[in-house]
Amino acid sequence: MTGEDAPLTRFAATRFSPMRFDPEHVVTDDQVDVLLRAAGRAPSAGNAQPWAFAVGRRGDAVHDRLVRHLARSSGRWAPDASLLLANLSQHLVEDTDLEYTEFAAYDLGQALAHLTFQAHAMGLAVHQFRAFDRGSLTTELDVPRHWQVTTMAAVGVPVGDVHEGAGTTRERHGIDAITWVRDGRAGLREPS
Amino acid sequence: MTGEDAPLTRFAATRFSPMRFDPEHVVTDDQVDVLLRAAGRAPSAGNAQPWAFAVGRRGDAVHDRLVRHLARSSGRWAPDASLLLANLSQHLVEDTDLEYTEFAAYDLGQALAHLTFQAHAMGLAVHQFRAFDRGSLTTELDVPRHWQVTTMAAVGVPVGDVHEGAGTTRERHGIDAITWVRDGRAGLREPS
Repeated sequence: MTGEDAPLTRFAATRFSPMRFDPEHVVTDDQVDVLLRAAGRAPSAGNAQPWAFAVGRRGDAVHDRLVRHLARSSGRWAPDASLLLANLSQHLVEDTDLEYTEFAAYDLGQALAHLTFQAHAMGLAVHQFRAFDRGSLTTELDVPRHWQVTTMAAVGVPVGDVHEGAGTTRERHGIDAITWVRDGRAGLREPS
Repeated sequence: MTGEDAPLTRFAATRFSPMRFDPEHVVTDDQVDVLLRAAGRAPSAGNAQPWAFAVGRRGDAVHDRLVRHLARSSGRWAPDASLLLANLSQHLVEDTDLEYTEFAAYDLGQALAHLTFQAHAMGLAVHQFRAFDRGSLTTELDVPRHWQVTTMAAVGVPVGDVHEGAGTTRERHGIDAITWVRDGRAGLREPS
């Protein structure tokens, strides 16, 4: 895969966010450990590692607590996944208004991406979402104000594929539309 | 790699942020396209795709413009990389104070992670950094207030490895320290 003709990786080419998960598949405790380790190895500004995860395996007590705070939309598909995560970012230093890191959300996003790569290598897929009650989940998880429940994610074995309407992989902008400026190429700004 | 004994992927196990790049290596225009396509295929909230990239290949005019705004620290190593990127996120709707997406930084972080994963499959490595003059680079790139130059990244072939002090792969928290709550396991909060 080195060289000029490098294609997109299989991961980049085929990843999608499932909306149907196998409700029988069980993720093992060891697999969860590996997923968390992969997330935790993401880079972060100043190595701040401003992330933490509430981890519910389908059927366990934490899973029950997470499911209660799903929106109606996510409540239709996310509980079937083998694993539900609430993804927290630390943006302030405890008991202060001082910024802990400017990159709390940015770095958490990266950690989820690293978890997603790892999941794919294990035959699993990930669907991140915001369709949950942040206020009530913050209370449920006893989250102090220097942390935020930023997103949730469902992890498991997809049923069907994206072409069957079982997931979301939406149209993407072309390269020009995500290029700010680049020599000899179109972008949102002309080269000066 | 499926199943209970799944190890960390090679990517997760070996990735590091180089601080020395091969100053002779050239990344092709096609390779840059693939990297941008991989970044652009990252998931984003509502498919907002709130990202854009200023792209400088070593020696070209955009590269020269980016290099001028590096901090002294990053100026020592980043210009040697084959590719310099300024990574922009769109947080507001143009000409308004309305949020374009709550997840501008989070999603940009994911896009960089996807670019990093693609780069590794191509024999390249990525070092993201904040050591640049945001104000002057914002002016240089004619960035309006609904966008932000959030980070920069250097992409190329690492020289040496992390054990030779040629990169950063720092200590990470253990799983317990990034677990908020999990049944039967230690975390930052006890299961209730």
